[in-house]
Amino acid sequence: MTDERFEKQLNFLTEMDKMKTILRKNIIIDKTKNEDDAEHSWHMALFAVTLFEYADPGVDLLRAVKMALVHDLVETYAGDTFCFDEAANESKELREAQAADRVFGLLPAEQGAEFRRLWEEFDRMDTPDALYAAAMDRLQPFILNYNTDGHTWKLGAVREDQVYRRLEPVRAALPALWGTIDKMVRACIEKGLIRAS
Amino acid sequence: MTDERFEKQLNFLTEMDKMKTILRKNIIIDKTKNEDDAEHSWHMALFAVTLFEYADPGVDLLRAVKMALVHDLVETYAGDTFCFDEAANESKELREAQAADRVFGLLPAEQGAEFRRLWEEFDRMDTPDALYAAAMDRLQPFILNYNTDGHTWKLGAVREDQVYRRLEPVRAALPALWGTIDKMVRACIEKGLIRAS
Repeated sequence: MTDERFEKQLNFLTEMDKMKTILRKNIIIDKTKNEDDAEHSWHMALFAVTLFEYADPGVDLLRAVKMALVHDLVETYAGDTFCFDEAANESKELREAQAADRVFGLLPAEQGAEFRRLWEEFDRMDTPDALYAAAMDRLQPFILNYNTDGHTWKLGAVREDQVYRRLEPVRAALPALWGTIDKMVRACIEKGLIRAS
Repeated sequence: MTDERFEKQLNFLTEMDKMKTILRKNIIIDKTKNEDDAEHSWHMALFAVTLFEYADPGVDLLRAVKMALVHDLVETYAGDTFCFDEAANESKELREAQAADRVFGLLPAEQGAEFRRLWEEFDRMDTPDALYAAAMDRLQPFILNYNTDGHTWKLGAVREDQVYRRLEPVRAALPALWGTIDKMVRACIEKGLIRAS
């Protein structure tokens, strides 16, 4: 029994190695390569741990970190969808739901269901844990863009209103930091890294 | 006050982007590249979450996952030390202690001290949380080696007794799984991926 369970878990952990090959649109700060999903998920989890003092007192950090670790697993089969590509985002939901059947289906049933619920909750952003995790998922690439002359903003000719929409969970989850982050956005608009709307 | 704190935390999170450039000796399972520290740390944290049911009931999963996220941060300044290179491991302690001053010194004092304590506890492996985290740090590269024809074992002409020594925390922290893992080691010795002692 343990053997069969462990075999499934090992198979899942082995398959998920693919996260290291799924490239995002972001480049890392030294500009030598695109960031991959495993790197992004680690960095996002470190953001969550480091900035936890600013979260709503009701946030469960372990659940938020678990979300960070699993929130992109479906991309191993569905690929990365550029957040500023509106057409690609239309087909994203169906592609990712099908990928989720495959990814979470690798695990023992109840564990796969638990991981899938975490991912779905994260995606809906309708609990304090999910909102906090989503804020980290938005803030981390913002910081990469901020430090790489707006790499993906330029790539997508991204407008101010699009950036603010992406950062909405950051404003909601980290109100104490929003003043500082808003100043950073303004500076990027002034430098022409983000198009003024 | 918040501004200065947040600035330090952001600077730390920005500096730690370097984790994505620190290459390990392991290659990823599709054999296209070496694994980096950020990828390894994410994978190790996912191992910790997925295999938690086999841990000692006293283990605090959040602390173990935090250890996974921060256990290699010092390598951003000290570099990766090949675990099977005995000469390099002699100088490792001093190099890493100096790097730790720099890495954890980026954070507000009490937060830097907290992260540093987690890293030191992890390194000592003298608590259930640290032993469990260390087991994940050993099992994850074992699984990569197992799936890449013993890539780093061959690189270091590694002997059976060295592999068993590396896996000792796995045996101690996950007794229910040791039978299966031991069988995997035996199979690798039989295939000549690990040198029989």
